[in-house]
Amino acid sequence: MPSTLASIAELNCPLPYPAENAVLLGHGSGGKLSAELLNDVFLPALSNPALARLDDQAVVNVNQQRIAFTTDSFVVKPLFFPGGNIGSLAVHGTINDLAVGGATPLFLSAAFIVEEGYPIEDLRRIVLSMHEAAAAAGVQVVTGDTKVVERGKGDGVFITTTGIGIMPEGVEMCSDRARPGDKILLSGSIGDHGIAILAKREGIEFESAVESDSAALHTLTAAIVSCGSGVRCMRDPTRGGLSSALNEIATRSGVSMEIDERAIPVCEEVSGACELLGLDPLYVANEGKLIAIVEAESADKVLEAMRKHPLGAQAVVIGTVNSGSPSLVTMRTTLGTTRIVDMLSGDQLPRIC
Amino acid sequence: MPSTLASIAELNCPLPYPAENAVLLGHGSGGKLSAELLNDVFLPALSNPALARLDDQAVVNVNQQRIAFTTDSFVVKPLFFPGGNIGSLAVHGTINDLAVGGATPLFLSAAFIVEEGYPIEDLRRIVLSMHEAAAAAGVQVVTGDTKVVERGKGDGVFITTTGIGIMPEGVEMCSDRARPGDKILLSGSIGDHGIAILAKREGIEFESAVESDSAALHTLTAAIVSCGSGVRCMRDPTRGGLSSALNEIATRSGVSMEIDERAIPVCEEVSGACELLGLDPLYVANEGKLIAIVEAESADKVLEAMRKHPLGAQAVVIGTVNSGSPSLVTMRTTLGTTRIVDMLSGDQLPRIC
Repeated sequence: MPSTLASIAELNCPLPYPAENAVLLGHGSGGKLSAELLNDVFLPALSNPALARLDDQAVVNVNQQRIAFTTDSFVVKPLFFPGGNIGSLAVHGTINDLAVGGATPLFLSAAFIVEEGYPIEDLRRIVLSMHEAAAAAGVQVVTGDTKVVERGKGDGVFITTTGIGIMPEGVEMCSDRARPGDKILLSGSIGDHGIAILAKREGIEFESAVESDSAALHTLTAAIVSCGSGVRCMRDPTRGGLSSALNEIATRSGVSMEIDERAIPVCEEVSGACELLGLDPLYVANEGKLIAIVEAESADKVLEAMRKHPLGAQAVVIGTVNSGSPSLVTMRTTLGTTRIVDMLSGDQLPRIC
Repeated sequence: MPSTLASIAELNCPLPYPAENAVLLGHGSGGKLSAELLNDVFLPALSNPALARLDDQAVVNVNQQRIAFTTDSFVVKPLFFPGGNIGSLAVHGTINDLAVGGATPLFLSAAFIVEEGYPIEDLRRIVLSMHEAAAAAGVQVVTGDTKVVERGKGDGVFITTTGIGIMPEGVEMCSDRARPGDKILLSGSIGDHGIAILAKREGIEFESAVESDSAALHTLTAAIVSCGSGVRCMRDPTRGGLSSALNEIATRSGVSMEIDERAIPVCEEVSGACELLGLDPLYVANEGKLIAIVEAESADKVLEAMRKHPLGAQAVVIGTVNSGSPSLVTMRTTLGTTRIVDMLSGDQLPRIC
């Protein structure tokens, strides 16, 4: 455990290069620095309407067919962890990025960057996990690529998965559609993935094991989508956690949000680990949870649909969208006070996915 | 130059781990070891009809629409080289993998794995090059992702691009369609990209600079496809060079091939550098060339169409498909002898793309 605390403390240490001109670990956190890099480097150069939506997936038109398209690189460390490995995670993650946009995932590609010397047997286990995760979800990995880099120029295996899916007719999901009065729904407990990774990485043991929640959410999202047009948008709160996902939607929609700490499920072990390590579960990554912003009249119906699904059995309403200061997310704490829930700044847990 | 020769010689040195159980640089070469890894690890686990075609792209059905889908990771070193950089290369490479399947490229995704400390200004240049290459080719980068890994766990920037395109009605291209009597067409000189990278990496200077031939081939392939059904298949001979591309087609189609060394264009500087370094231009990577297998009656028409295009001005017939020993590729040399042209074994030039 000392090494964890040390590595967290190190984030405040001076860097061996001018930080303002260099890419930092925090630029990959999914929080404030990631947003800055996107706004400073990627959007000005690549800007186009599909990219500018800033959702987890693009929706493009191919001969009058609305196709959802998304990509993610996975650099999780360690490669094998309780509840999964980089292979299953890379399949679930990309399926989920399609699913939360309302799309039906169909096909995946997988590109591997392998470090010279990596055991072929471990690579085989990873690829088998990808197959199992894809088959269980009813999608196919149809194309791929493998590159090898010298020892010390990579870190075992990196995987980039890209997914295509189809947008059902009439379904419109976008993070700019939250409106005052909407309810904020969360499908289950937060922080499991991040704490499982951290525990494995640092050799921390719990009384009962914390497992990653890594799972494919597309049948849960299909159940939500089938509740009708009252569903404004969905997000899977991965890197940057629940707080970053809510802040992104609040900013894009120009609304404020208030959530209730008592309503947010956190497993006992996760809660304990967070307290011990000085982490806030609102910022810890999830890989099998989603939030849905739903107009008030549809909230009960959507909640019921979610609870009928094994991955949404613990679903709850955690807050409300308001018309106050645009992009402000606040939380009523268990103590009855109100605090601001900002985006993650820096990187609390690097390489979590 | 000594370091080049040394690094080539080192490939024969003992490795610090049991080579038969570990991923080697050669597994990323696009040659024999790549094929072994594909057959041993990826195909058994992931096997499905789209993947089993073993072309540079998958063709999948989305609501009766034939969509081409392809992915490639780029780990080229150095990141900037004469004639391009990793950004333009990542756009061209994926456009070309769609194009040689006969598809019209439409949209790209781009996923970045950046090493902590990499200069933001250089990242900006790379992203701008991607935009310029994409805009020039009429495709859009519509979705992306950025991850950051610690210093010493990556190497500057790795980029994975994935492309989707549309297959024109009636177009069928597959590497199993070569037939005895077909002609083998090559769009221009070989070896430019590999030698440009190697020269930059090793600080070798030529009288006139060798530039990478990196270019988007989709308008050239469209001109070829428009010649009709006599076009059996196309390939862009990247990693593993011309020899590996021909061997793949010969194996998949169960045919032999004979090419003529005198017909294969090689620039003077490339030829000189290869001689000096003990490299064979048949194994050196290209990023803006293609081969087309065409039935004999259509060869003149296709050749004419290629020569009208700036990227095919030097197009030539380099050989013939025969019915002899399946998968055997031979070459009549300038000396009048015949030699076997095998797939690349090992890795003559790692991290060329």
